[in-house]
Amino acid sequence: MDIATIVGLILGIASVVGSILAGGTLAAFIDVASVVVVGGGVTAATFIKWPLAQIKTLPPVCMKSIFNEAPDPLQVIEKIQSLAEKARKESVFALENEPVEDEFMQKAVKLAADNRPPEVITSILQLEIDALGERHKSGIAILKGVAEDGPAMGMIGTLIGLVLMLQNLSGGPDELGKSMAVAMLTTFYGAVLANMFAGPIANKLAFYSELELLKMNIIIAGVLGIVAGENPRVIREKLDSFLPPGQRTKEE
Amino acid sequence: MDIATIVGLILGIASVVGSILAGGTLAAFIDVASVVVVGGGVTAATFIKWPLAQIKTLPPVCMKSIFNEAPDPLQVIEKIQSLAEKARKESVFALENEPVEDEFMQKAVKLAADNRPPEVITSILQLEIDALGERHKSGIAILKGVAEDGPAMGMIGTLIGLVLMLQNLSGGPDELGKSMAVAMLTTFYGAVLANMFAGPIANKLAFYSELELLKMNIIIAGVLGIVAGENPRVIREKLDSFLPPGQRTKEE
Amino acid sequence: MDIATIVGLILGIASVVGSILAGGTLAAFIDVASVVVVGGGVTAATFIKWPLAQIKTLPPVCMKSIFNEAPDPLQVIEKIQSLAEKARKESVFALENEPVEDEFMQKAVKLAADNRPPEVITSILQLEIDALGERHKSGIAILKGVAEDGPAMGMIGTLIGLVLMLQNLSGGPDELGKSMAVAMLTTFYGAVLANMFAGPIANKLAFYSELELLKMNIIIAGVLGIVAGENPRVIREKLDSFLPPGQRTKEE
Amino acid sequence: MDIATIVGLILGIASVVGSILAGGTLAAFIDVASVVVVGGGVTAATFIKWPLAQIKTLPPVCMKSIFNEAPDPLQVIEKIQSLAEKARKESVFALENEPVEDEFMQKAVKLAADNRPPEVITSILQLEIDALGERHKSGIAILKGVAEDGPAMGMIGTLIGLVLMLQNLSGGPDELGKSMAVAMLTTFYGAVLANMFAGPIANKLAFYSELELLKMNIIIAGVLGIVAGENPRVIREKLDSFLPPGQRTKEE
Amino acid sequence: MDIATIVGLILGIASVVGSILAGGTLAAFIDVASVVVVGGGVTAATFIKWPLAQIKTLPPVCMKSIFNEAPDPLQVIEKIQSLAEKARKESVFALENEPVEDEFMQKAVKLAADNRPPEVITSILQLEIDALGERHKSGIAILKGVAEDGPAMGMIGTLIGLVLMLQNLSGGPDELGKSMAVAMLTTFYGAVLANMFAGPIANKLAFYSELELLKMNIIIAGVLGIVAGENPRVIREKLDSFLPPGQRTKEE
Repeated sequence: MDIATIVGLILGIASVVGSILAGGTLAAFIDVASVVVVGGGVTAATFIKWPLAQIKTLPPVCMKSIFNEAPDPLQVIEKIQSLAEKARKESVFALENEPVEDEFMQKAVKLAADNRPPEVITSILQLEIDALGERHKSGIAILKGVAEDGPAMGMIGTLIGLVLMLQNLSGGPDELGKSMAVAMLTTFYGAVLANMFAGPIANKLAFYSELELLKMNIIIAGVLGIVAGENPRVIREKLDSFLPPGQRTKEE
Repeated sequence: MDIATIVGLILGIASVVGSILAGGTLAAFIDVASVVVVGGGVTAATFIKWPLAQIKTLPPVCMKSIFNEAPDPLQVIEKIQSLAEKARKESVFALENEPVEDEFMQKAVKLAADNRPPEVITSILQLEIDALGERHKSGIAILKGVAEDGPAMGMIGTLIGLVLMLQNLSGGPDELGKSMAVAMLTTFYGAVLANMFAGPIANKLAFYSELELLKMNIIIAGVLGIVAGENPRVIREKLDSFLPPGQRTKEE
Repeated sequence: MDIATIVGLILGIASVVGSILAGGTLAAFIDVASVVVVGGGVTAATFIKWPLAQIKTLPPVCMKSIFNEAPDPLQVIEKIQSLAEKARKESVFALENEPVEDEFMQKAVKLAADNRPPEVITSILQLEIDALGERHKSGIAILKGVAEDGPAMGMIGTLIGLVLMLQNLSGGPDELGKSMAVAMLTTFYGAVLANMFAGPIANKLAFYSELELLKMNIIIAGVLGIVAGENPRVIREKLDSFLPPGQRTKEE
Repeated sequence: MDIATIVGLILGIASVVGSILAGGTLAAFIDVASVVVVGGGVTAATFIKWPLAQIKTLPPVCMKSIFNEAPDPLQVIEKIQSLAEKARKESVFALENEPVEDEFMQKAVKLAADNRPPEVITSILQLEIDALGERHKSGIAILKGVAEDGPAMGMIGTLIGLVLMLQNLSGGPDELGKSMAVAMLTTFYGAVLANMFAGPIANKLAFYSELELLKMNIIIAGVLGIVAGENPRVIREKLDSFLPPGQRTKEE
Repeated sequence: MDIATIVGLILGIASVVGSILAGGTLAAFIDVASVVVVGGGVTAATFIKWPLAQIKTLPPVCMKSIFNEAPDPLQVIEKIQSLAEKARKESVFALENEPVEDEFMQKAVKLAADNRPPEVITSILQLEIDALGERHKSGIAILKGVAEDGPAMGMIGTLIGLVLMLQNLSGGPDELGKSMAVAMLTTFYGAVLANMFAGPIANKLAFYSELELLKMNIIIAGVLGIVAGENPRVIREKLDSFLPPGQRTKEE
């Protein structure tokens, strides 16, 4: 679970809700028609913009960025080193029953234990990397689209509210004030959706995507080294070079 | 028929109309002069921006993105494989009478059945691909232009309405409110046109264009394989490599 | 004469004027001081931004894009083919007295008829192409600058009007309304200037520029073919490859 | 002196001042606190953004773009040709006492007359070109920053004014109007600063910079030709190729 | 200590505070709930956007840009030259006890005095350069994000304030004015945060980062020269070529 994302989401909601409660009640900020026009409008624009197949991949991709732990390349490297040592002492086939948590690494280890040739291992795993990269990229693009559509649909909703209000000014100032407050809610919803959720999550997703793909590339390189029967220390050194320096100096 | 686009368009219109009906009547949102200034202005800008030949290709291109089914490269590959098998068993000339739904594939198959040399097949079909790609690109550019002009013309219309209203404040607040409501309609029209129609459709079009060109390239590669008398299984493998991994894993 | 540009300009003006007349009189939208601040401001910014030599080329470049016919590369190719046939039957020198409408083609043909070596023909004509390309590019950049300055100067004018109005609120609401209406006129002028004229014309200009340079390159290639004594049919084929596929399929 | 820049600056100021005087007095547009918040804010942002060394080069760079004449490459070429002819007739050493107005050309000629080897001449002069190019680039970047900061600081000032006004609504409408007018002045100042001065001058500077560097490169090439004892006519032809075609056709 | 940054920060705060005090009291511009929504919102967005590891590097990076002196490459070169001279006269091992202020240079000199081979020196130091460059890059990206989030969160806060105010118009105009003033404070905070702090500091940071990395590269090149036993004068010349010409001409 990515702590920063959770902290950010809670802090963001707390800031907005706290600020509302300091001056009034939450009820004043909930309006079904406004939710419908912003939510419906953004969903509509997303459906027109992208094919269904692409849209369907969004929710799992988002959930992962919130609830999954960021892959730690260092830990991955250490696991591979221990697998390499085992393969050295016993044999590559001994990896068959080795418990591997990471799903992708498990697949890679199984391919190695099955004695598949390196080209086959590379091409099968590379395909998976490409597919994941594509899924991530399309998820990020959709979220960025939502971050653009939110304010736009908010403005459309506010325009609807203002036109309705201006058409009927017969009520007293109190009633007009309430109508105008409701009209502004859609702009508020759109701004919160874009700037507190869609935009920032797209940013984190892009970060995670890079890390995930890095991890997968480390695993491929490591398993190829194991298959080639390389010295575990040599494998470790090779994999270390995948790490950005900031990662290496983290333990300082 | 692209379901996502249809769903999106209906959902978008429903959100806006529903939100209007929840607080008033649709009639309050229809004003002929406002439609004229936004519609006329956007059309005018489009005519000044682009040559007539380019503009004329827009409506069919748009319609296609809404009503045509997205080409399914997988299905195309399977069809080509079956054609390759038939050509293997009988001969390339047997493809002459083979029923082929896709217009472009039909043309390609006919060229093959006519025993035209590969270079000729490639150059004739490539020309068609280039022409379609260009038509798509220009359609997307025009739609993006409309998405920019919509809000601009909306603002011009609102300015006209406000100036007219401010010139004559003698009416009571009721009348002023109605004038101002009308003045804001053009901004509303422009925002809806840009954010619910032109912008998102341009996005989907760009997606479809890529898919369509991919399909055409698959067809060329397949037909060249058939003409060269390659093994249908080999052809299938070659064509599979055209598919983005996301497409291949779709059936999972 | 480019019909689309003319139609666009007329339609744009008609939309705005019609929308004004539907609710008031044109007189309410004409204010000398507002015209001065927007027109003067945009002109001033243009003069500071660009050297005089560049600015002077703008009016003829604009006029051309409105009143000149778009060059039709197909027609140019046909003319060159007929010249090539004449040169074949008689001799290159016979082109001397051949009537050629297009100025650039005339120059090219004269160079050919003067028996100048191909390198000289190329370098002389290329220089002219470069000069025209540069003139177009600078005209487009200036127009895009005007499209940015229009709204900015409009806002400055509106701020002036609002400050003046707010300094003297003693008049009745009628008078205030009129002052505010006038203050908004500069924003209106700036928006119309940018979105109905400068921006779209810059777009069309960019399109024309490409077409004009294409035409010139076709002429150079054609004349070099004539000078080299190539077969008119070969020349035609070579020149056809210059055409974008969209152009070739136009006659379908 | 660059006439276009001067004309533009005068016209811009005249448009704004004239528009103000047409409806009120200049005094209403001068407010010390507003000048302080915009001027101070923009200066502050500039100081935070850039190191002192960079900022110090801005004023002379700006002044040059206003008061210096644009370098005329043609004139430079002619001067070099006459120097080349003199060097041919007499000797390179005779250039020692030749009066040369342009500072950079004088330095170049002196290096030639001192019989320095070509590599030394090139490296010394190239260093100066790089230093000037860098100075220009940083001046343009700072001005573009000012053009962004102006409106931002203007908005901050207006927010301050509005908050102050809203905190104390007890005055009559006249007083409120005046407070609001003052609040809007900062936005006015920022818009004028950005759109009439900083932005356009940055544009002209970029243009001048290119011309100045072109001139310097012409001088290096010319002096190297003189040092190599090349024919003045050959030198002229070589230098002519530096000119953009638009420059060559200027005399038409 | 970077004087320009300090001067800029003080001048910026002074301009804003001075402008406030000229018309009212600072107290009117401090509102806890507004600080919470902007500060909390921006922090929240930053936490969602970036992983914790990245965010933690921001404060030290910022502090450095404010309180550290800009590295002066010239001074670094002079120090290296004196070290080179000492190494020449005595030996590389004599550098062991030479006092070196700069931390990175000390590390480099120690590696040289330890007689480590050049490749090892290069790879160890290069790793540090990469890590610092990455830390800087991520710090700049986070600050640019803050400069975007500030105004967005300010707008969200203002919308909350306006909705609350409009929901309850029963107070007199005085009370409404105060509510509206408070509502605008968040926009004010966001604008100041973005345009006076986050944005400009990101700019200075980018500048410093380049200078710091330049300094480090100079040190590597210099120490490699010392290790190779090169002539101090030769080393000096080589290092001078690292300086941008603007740096060299500073002493003129």
